[in-house]
Amino acid sequence: MTKEELFEQITKKKSFLCIGLDTDLSKIPTHLLQLEDPFFEFNKKIIDATHNYCVAYKLNTAFYEAMGLKGWKSLEKTINYLNQKYPNLFTIADAKRGDIGNTSKMYATAFLENLNFDSITVAPYMGKDSVSPFLEYKNKWVILLALTSNSGSDDFQTQETKSGLLYEQVLTTSKQWGNEGNMMYVVGATKAEMLGKIRSIIPNHFLLVPGVGAQGGSLQEVAKYGMNSQCGLLVNASRSIIYAGNGSDFAEKAAKEAQTMQQEMASLL
Amino acid sequence: MTKEELFEQITKKKSFLCIGLDTDLSKIPTHLLQLEDPFFEFNKKIIDATHNYCVAYKLNTAFYEAMGLKGWKSLEKTINYLNQKYPNLFTIADAKRGDIGNTSKMYATAFLENLNFDSITVAPYMGKDSVSPFLEYKNKWVILLALTSNSGSDDFQTQETKSGLLYEQVLTTSKQWGNEGNMMYVVGATKAEMLGKIRSIIPNHFLLVPGVGAQGGSLQEVAKYGMNSQCGLLVNASRSIIYAGNGSDFAEKAAKEAQTMQQEMASLL
Repeated sequence: MTKEELFEQITKKKSFLCIGLDTDLSKIPTHLLQLEDPFFEFNKKIIDATHNYCVAYKLNTAFYEAMGLKGWKSLEKTINYLNQKYPNLFTIADAKRGDIGNTSKMYATAFLENLNFDSITVAPYMGKDSVSPFLEYKNKWVILLALTSNSGSDDFQTQETKSGLLYEQVLTTSKQWGNEGNMMYVVGATKAEMLGKIRSIIPNHFLLVPGVGAQGGSLQEVAKYGMNSQCGLLVNASRSIIYAGNGSDFAEKAAKEAQTMQQEMASLL
Repeated sequence: MTKEELFEQITKKKSFLCIGLDTDLSKIPTHLLQLEDPFFEFNKKIIDATHNYCVAYKLNTAFYEAMGLKGWKSLEKTINYLNQKYPNLFTIADAKRGDIGNTSKMYATAFLENLNFDSITVAPYMGKDSVSPFLEYKNKWVILLALTSNSGSDDFQTQETKSGLLYEQVLTTSKQWGNEGNMMYVVGATKAEMLGKIRSIIPNHFLLVPGVGAQGGSLQEVAKYGMNSQCGLLVNASRSIIYAGNGSDFAEKAAKEAQTMQQEMASLL
């Protein structure tokens, strides 16, 4: 998906919501557990109920890998379902991968080629040749970790280097590896006050913003400091939406929660 | 596996060799391709032929993920084979994972619990709470990226911060998260001259050293600067061993290559 196509979807749906499918067997409604593939059934119902309110879905690979072979199958079925039924939705493999060149190439094959995700989250620590293989696919995206939403982000990301804080250096250096049409950055909503500085380094790139919802970040603050002329934001919510309900009406409750966020987003756009 | 047990294996086998199973369909002998699971057949033959010369096997998850569901199955079969037939060998999931706490917990479940690897490689960028969940398993290990062997390692890892170079800060900070019995560090053989400084920060931790072999690092240099009283080194070679041959005698050729390295290691111990 191109940047223009993504912005078109945002404009059309008046939403920059990304829904995170952090599907967890211990949290999904118990009536699904008797089905052959509870993960996929849950995801399908959530997607069908919420797709009008969001522009992206993010699949957190850890939750699927924790289920082994079965989980990988559910991951495949979910991304295939999204690509076939909702081709206008932007898809994110939230995989936090990154390794030496020949290995990153394999991860790119796995997620951008075989599974055909639009994008993958990548960790920056190993530098340029660990990121470049993901940038070789047309209309696919790297979403590079810059400033994450967790407490550990202060251990290294906000440490001072010779060229600003580490995450600022990551932005300044890495923006030369790709362009505004194939790179986005992860910036946590819990660090909204830093978005002003971030926008001075990368005014036009899209940001994937986790941390609104269960992690406590504010949507208003994110929009205030992070929005640009083409929106430039994908705000993710996972648990607060997909686990809004736990009964037979879980999908409707998720839809209601997603709609509430969409309406708030519409007023901010 | 405990640190003492690992050192016992090193002493017994006079080897600190780790063999990387970067199994690639385009590189394995063509006569295996007609079998139902070429990946597993290749790995099994390599393991059976080389296990006397090494103390560890490292499975690079990217190569398996690039094969989708089939690849994940081969990964499962290979680690199960290692755990059942060779329980004294140290196993590494070279997965370079790391995410917010609840997600790292899922990766830990996947690799340290379900697949029962002894260890997993983890990226440090997201800080303490992204690493801690992996440290909660008894006799299991985190192998944290410190200074990698690729060209991109200079982009951030060797940048100056207020407390030394970034990778030095990673060592100093992260060694407080665990101990010498549950944390190792990745230090590339191509940066052997930096091992002296690294040993001043973490004198006793084990280091996983990639980059000898196909990437050009020197075993002598690594041993000279990196070895400690309990060896403290696992030196990895992947392609130079597993692809030493390409015919029906590929396993014997791999064994010969592994033996050559083992003999060199014996003279350095």
